Amino acid sequence: MTANLQILLDRRPTDKVSRANFRIVETPVPSPGPGQVLVRHEFLSLDPYMRGRLSDAKSYAAPQEVGAVMQGGTVGVVEASNNPHFKAGDAVVGMGGWQSYSLSDGRDLRVVDAKAVPIQAYLGTVGMPGVTAWYGLNKIIAPKAGETVLVSAATGAVGSVVGQLAKFHRARPVGIAGGPEKCAYAIKELGYEACVDHKSPTFAEELKAALSNGVDGLFENVGGEPFLQALRRLNNFARVAICGLIASYEGAPTVIPDMRIFLVKRIKVEGFIQSDHPDLRPQAISELVGHAAAGRLKWRETIRDGLENAPQALVDLLHGENFGKMLIRVH
Amino acid sequence: MTANLQILLDRRPTDKVSRANFRIVETPVPSPGPGQVLVRHEFLSLDPYMRGRLSDAKSYAAPQEVGAVMQGGTVGVVEASNNPHFKAGDAVVGMGGWQSYSLSDGRDLRVVDAKAVPIQAYLGTVGMPGVTAWYGLNKIIAPKAGETVLVSAATGAVGSVVGQLAKFHRARPVGIAGGPEKCAYAIKELGYEACVDHKSPTFAEELKAALSNGVDGLFENVGGEPFLQALRRLNNFARVAICGLIASYEGAPTVIPDMRIFLVKRIKVEGFIQSDHPDLRPQAISELVGHAAAGRLKWRETIRDGLENAPQALVDLLHGENFGKMLIRVH
Repeated sequence: MTANLQILLDRRPTDKVSRANFRIVETPVPSPGPGQVLVRHEFLSLDPYMRGRLSDAKSYAAPQEVGAVMQGGTVGVVEASNNPHFKAGDAVVGMGGWQSYSLSDGRDLRVVDAKAVPIQAYLGTVGMPGVTAWYGLNKIIAPKAGETVLVSAATGAVGSVVGQLAKFHRARPVGIAGGPEKCAYAIKELGYEACVDHKSPTFAEELKAALSNGVDGLFENVGGEPFLQALRRLNNFARVAICGLIASYEGAPTVIPDMRIFLVKRIKVEGFIQSDHPDLRPQAISELVGHAAAGRLKWRETIRDGLENAPQALVDLLHGENFGKMLIRVH
Repeated sequence: MTANLQILLDRRPTDKVSRANFRIVETPVPSPGPGQVLVRHEFLSLDPYMRGRLSDAKSYAAPQEVGAVMQGGTVGVVEASNNPHFKAGDAVVGMGGWQSYSLSDGRDLRVVDAKAVPIQAYLGTVGMPGVTAWYGLNKIIAPKAGETVLVSAATGAVGSVVGQLAKFHRARPVGIAGGPEKCAYAIKELGYEACVDHKSPTFAEELKAALSNGVDGLFENVGGEPFLQALRRLNNFARVAICGLIASYEGAPTVIPDMRIFLVKRIKVEGFIQSDHPDLRPQAISELVGHAAAGRLKWRETIRDGLENAPQALVDLLHGENFGKMLIRVH
């Protein structure tokens, strides 16, 4: 058995995160103690929320500890088990962290069906990002047929699911994405009615033209100037689900220049995190797996090979250089 | 019969509204045509929303027409009626406008019981402001027992009802008001657990001290700097009902300096206007009249005598110089 490669947070970023904030170490592959499970990771998930954990500012989750293995979602195969709920060979999803192997008492592990959908989809479309899309769209935006739903980061792990679920409601998804390639994919493959490139010098005009009926639901993943342009297009009684503000994680805060819009247009704005709603997760995952297994949900992945590339992959994710779900192939 | 005194909007304010924006005229008291009702006004309501109507900026209601009688809520007595639903002597609430008498086809009129509560309360605690309080508290904040509900303009026509309704939910109301007299009244008469004077030079520290358990529900009537201080005290999963932003109606816009608080704390912010929910009005008014008639709801009024004083009273209302509901005694 080879060593367990681990990536630790070495020091917190003071400005933008870089590879220099991390350290790689090799440790022996551990043996499972009583009740424990040893998981060999196949894929590690990289997600925008990780940037927040690197800071020790107060947030909804405890910060990542300096000197500890980076936290993160993983899928893999049970290598050895002293836990009656798991057996060698089980495909499992869990929070194994940025390492080749992890030990678990089983509480964070869930056996998944890696035949219905590829195992790494449990880190994306049928995993946490998919549940995030499902919750924000169904429980906050709750679109009616014919309504316009605007989705930023429209081709990302979350946004790609939001757009497709909006179609199932017979709503009209419009996307915002970075670059013509992503926009073309959003329209041709994901079913968006239109997609506007936020890098375009005429973004504001293009967005306005794409939103001739205004916006009834805004699923916000990004923040920044495109978000402010989107606010100007909101209809009366619009619902805004704040899922992420990736543009502000290492950039300027997203400022609302005048609260009055919320009053005049009777807007509802709600920030949310899927992990607050564990009671709804089984329903969400069951619906998402059903759609995915039947071929009704599409997605793309950016896969980087090798755990040692995880720090750079996180940096690239924060700069929008992924196309769809960002993954590390660990083994 | 005397003349019908009418106050017209003469020209739109370009900055702060003043008496010079209005014009007073005398016209003959009209006679009701077929199906019409003539109402002799007893009280005219002055409300912050009126400032918005003076501007021709796009808003939820059509702007007040220049040269026309100012719109406004009124209570009065039917003087003559050609409408089978109303008879002379009926106490009625309606939108009679800034004038001594009004004609109506009856569609905006409602007969009220002026024995259960004083007639002018149908412009305040058991009228539009009361319904506003009822909707925002019950349908947006929905406080649980023990939760803290922060109310700005805590002794105003809306805020005074919010605080008392919050007590009925066994929540803990904390107020913000302008000046020690209003704050003392909020605590002693309205049942607020604490009340902080926004004019105090140590407002931010006092607010923090009064909110040692944070804020679970924020009923916002004012905006501006006190609102931003209140945002800093929000707990996870707080609900913010945006009812008014009176500080910004003639002042600087209320800016949210960083949207991230909504995400990190999973905040819900919702702007609302009671008139969007006519289906709930009968329930709200019935509950409010029940509380008021039983002596469970208290309120104060600032009454100015004479319709000619309505322009100055509106100016004073916008500067917080009222104490409780601002009314004009018309007859």
